[in-house]
Amino acid sequence: MSLDLKALEQQHQTFIGAKLNLDLTRGKPSSKQLDLSNALLTSIDVNVASGNNPEGTDLRNYGGVSGLSTSKKWFAELIGVPATEATDKVFVGSNSSLSLMHFCMWLAYYRGIRSANTGWQQEALATGGSIKMLCPSPGYDRHFSICEELGIEMIPVPLTGAGPDMNIAKKLISDDPLIKGIWCVPRFSNPTGEIYSDEVVNEIAQLGKIAGDNFLVFWDNAYAVHTFKDGVKELANILTLAKVADCEDSILHFASTSKITFAGAGIAAVASSKENIQAFSKHFSFRSIGPDKVNQFRHMQLLPDKQALVVHMQKHAELLKPKFDRVDEVLNAQLGNNKLGTWTKPDGGYFVSFNAQPGQAKSIIALAAEAGVKLTPAGSVFPYKNDPEDSNIRLAPSFPEMEELEKALQIFCNCVKLSAARKTG
Amino acid sequence: MSLDLKALEQQHQTFIGAKLNLDLTRGKPSSKQLDLSNALLTSIDVNVASGNNPEGTDLRNYGGVSGLSTSKKWFAELIGVPATEATDKVFVGSNSSLSLMHFCMWLAYYRGIRSANTGWQQEALATGGSIKMLCPSPGYDRHFSICEELGIEMIPVPLTGAGPDMNIAKKLISDDPLIKGIWCVPRFSNPTGEIYSDEVVNEIAQLGKIAGDNFLVFWDNAYAVHTFKDGVKELANILTLAKVADCEDSILHFASTSKITFAGAGIAAVASSKENIQAFSKHFSFRSIGPDKVNQFRHMQLLPDKQALVVHMQKHAELLKPKFDRVDEVLNAQLGNNKLGTWTKPDGGYFVSFNAQPGQAKSIIALAAEAGVKLTPAGSVFPYKNDPEDSNIRLAPSFPEMEELEKALQIFCNCVKLSAARKTG
Repeated sequence: MSLDLKALEQQHQTFIGAKLNLDLTRGKPSSKQLDLSNALLTSIDVNVASGNNPEGTDLRNYGGVSGLSTSKKWFAELIGVPATEATDKVFVGSNSSLSLMHFCMWLAYYRGIRSANTGWQQEALATGGSIKMLCPSPGYDRHFSICEELGIEMIPVPLTGAGPDMNIAKKLISDDPLIKGIWCVPRFSNPTGEIYSDEVVNEIAQLGKIAGDNFLVFWDNAYAVHTFKDGVKELANILTLAKVADCEDSILHFASTSKITFAGAGIAAVASSKENIQAFSKHFSFRSIGPDKVNQFRHMQLLPDKQALVVHMQKHAELLKPKFDRVDEVLNAQLGNNKLGTWTKPDGGYFVSFNAQPGQAKSIIALAAEAGVKLTPAGSVFPYKNDPEDSNIRLAPSFPEMEELEKALQIFCNCVKLSAARKTG
Repeated sequence: MSLDLKALEQQHQTFIGAKLNLDLTRGKPSSKQLDLSNALLTSIDVNVASGNNPEGTDLRNYGGVSGLSTSKKWFAELIGVPATEATDKVFVGSNSSLSLMHFCMWLAYYRGIRSANTGWQQEALATGGSIKMLCPSPGYDRHFSICEELGIEMIPVPLTGAGPDMNIAKKLISDDPLIKGIWCVPRFSNPTGEIYSDEVVNEIAQLGKIAGDNFLVFWDNAYAVHTFKDGVKELANILTLAKVADCEDSILHFASTSKITFAGAGIAAVASSKENIQAFSKHFSFRSIGPDKVNQFRHMQLLPDKQALVVHMQKHAELLKPKFDRVDEVLNAQLGNNKLGTWTKPDGGYFVSFNAQPGQAKSIIALAAEAGVKLTPAGSVFPYKNDPEDSNIRLAPSFPEMEELEKALQIFCNCVKLSAARKTG
């Protein structure tokens, strides 16, 4: 398909003239999705809050640093920890898993989680080298920012469509004892949408064998139950696999309700070995007398069991799937007959990963900004914001209403074509 | 007054036989106090939460890392920051100020708040010395625990009844550049109940002049509005005084609603210079996409203005004052005619500080435990849990109901007398 530069320029000017303000940048739930959890606002009454609850405690008062036992069981089921081990292996606290990840990273870097004086920093100071993390890329910008703040060197590892290339990952780890961890979004990976295969999960579960005691897998299962349809491949249980391999201490499994209930007012958890959770809770007790237990129990009232969660997530899917379908339809209609880009069609999660022709991403994003469509800055999903191909653009269709999404996609596609047309002539 | 050892022993055995389980350890609000804020549970409706609020944003969604502007103004008024500076100088986040203090301390120690590579740790590594904090003592055990975890050396500074002895504090700071901060609970100090005088506040506000750029005052004004009666001395405004002295960067002023609304489900803030809050917010953005804004706004609905807060705190006072009065009455009746102890009669806050005869605190606490009354472990309110006199016992009368409190105090007084009687005879 040949591109009509003049027509594309004209169309672009028309879009600019419309002075739109559209946003495809962040994976935020839409207002209608948030409405699904409105019962949270009133789901707890005085009687329950003040003591008539399975905890038998006054949820309004101080205490219980590692979370309510009911919340621990709830997250245990979500994560795949046996109910009998929920108390020991799950910590529930904070309003976001990002905050738990951040604290785990700081602890691991500066102090060591289980034993004092085992912080990565000490090894760096002793050897004069810098600590490194493997970063399957493209990935989640906020993971990379935590590393960047701490001066942890990020090493990109390619994704295969079924998780990171484990041959590369294992080789890197074998060669460098200062590689201390790996970031993973194992189901509906941000932004590629891929699901790690059972083989990959099993290999990651055993990385501690190669990498040694101080290695940590930051397993951010943010989209654990966020499928658009039934029958999507389940994720293998990394904690179980790691336990078999005697590597349970190396796994930090994070989860939250941010994209299940209210994005800003949810609850979050980390699961790991008994020893890790015990040590983490001790560290956490220096910063907290206890979490917001009222909010934890609100969630238990809203979504009391697995069945309630499944039904709830189906309602999210009903709102999200049409948007993701529309993205695919528009991209297909506009770009299906040329070679200007490829894109993912995920079965869940929050993103479509678009790969433009190499060297085109920055230009497309700048054009879209001119025309009133905000896109995630070029390179954001790579360590140091450096997309070596200048190709990837992350599209987040969840937040805008359908009409806005449609408009934004039309503009985006015109920018893709215009950028290519300008380049070729 | 002579002590009848035999009668005291008999009485003690009777108490032991009653197998009571009473607790005077922690400054927790009582159930009735928590009831004052029950409207929080339902104080926000869907309409308000989803956007019909002064913020004009969906409180249920992500965003706004430094807190709602209404919450900032609310805390600005509580803290004494001009409303026009609330946006720049106040950060509202987390469910407890302890969590904010902890993060400030970690930041200051490992990284530096305003500038990278100015962490105290670097100075310690460069000089081979250890970082130190001044700890007015007796003080708050959780402050001391944060220092202890980080290996920050704690230097006790005596309290005078109107704040720390500033001659000692200033001398220490002048003599040692590795003293990097001071912990303060300036109004109804935990546990002594004293209020820092205007002179002391002014001197603390200017400590940065002596101590240099990296010095921080951790100003934990936990009991800012927690008076038992009208007309109690106000606290001087340390941020204003520090600004005049060009030391605003050295003040971190913390506040929370933990003992205003729900102890576990409140909101918290830190106020400081514009530069500090900007830098702190940036650091915080690595760990959080935003706070629980729904809960922040619940608080704005419950306590919309200063007048509402005043009325609310009067209700707390009505519940607390009779308990503190009763403590004084029982101690007076039982110990008023001997020299077995002295104690404070605070005008606000959560504690009575009891000083037994030197060398008696551990023994009294152990006896009380036998008789079913849990007291804060001996030495807890001193750095390294080391009360040099083995004299101080912190009594927390807020949580138990009056009848239990009365019983616990009778047992406590018997233990004080028995311990002394055993020693002398």
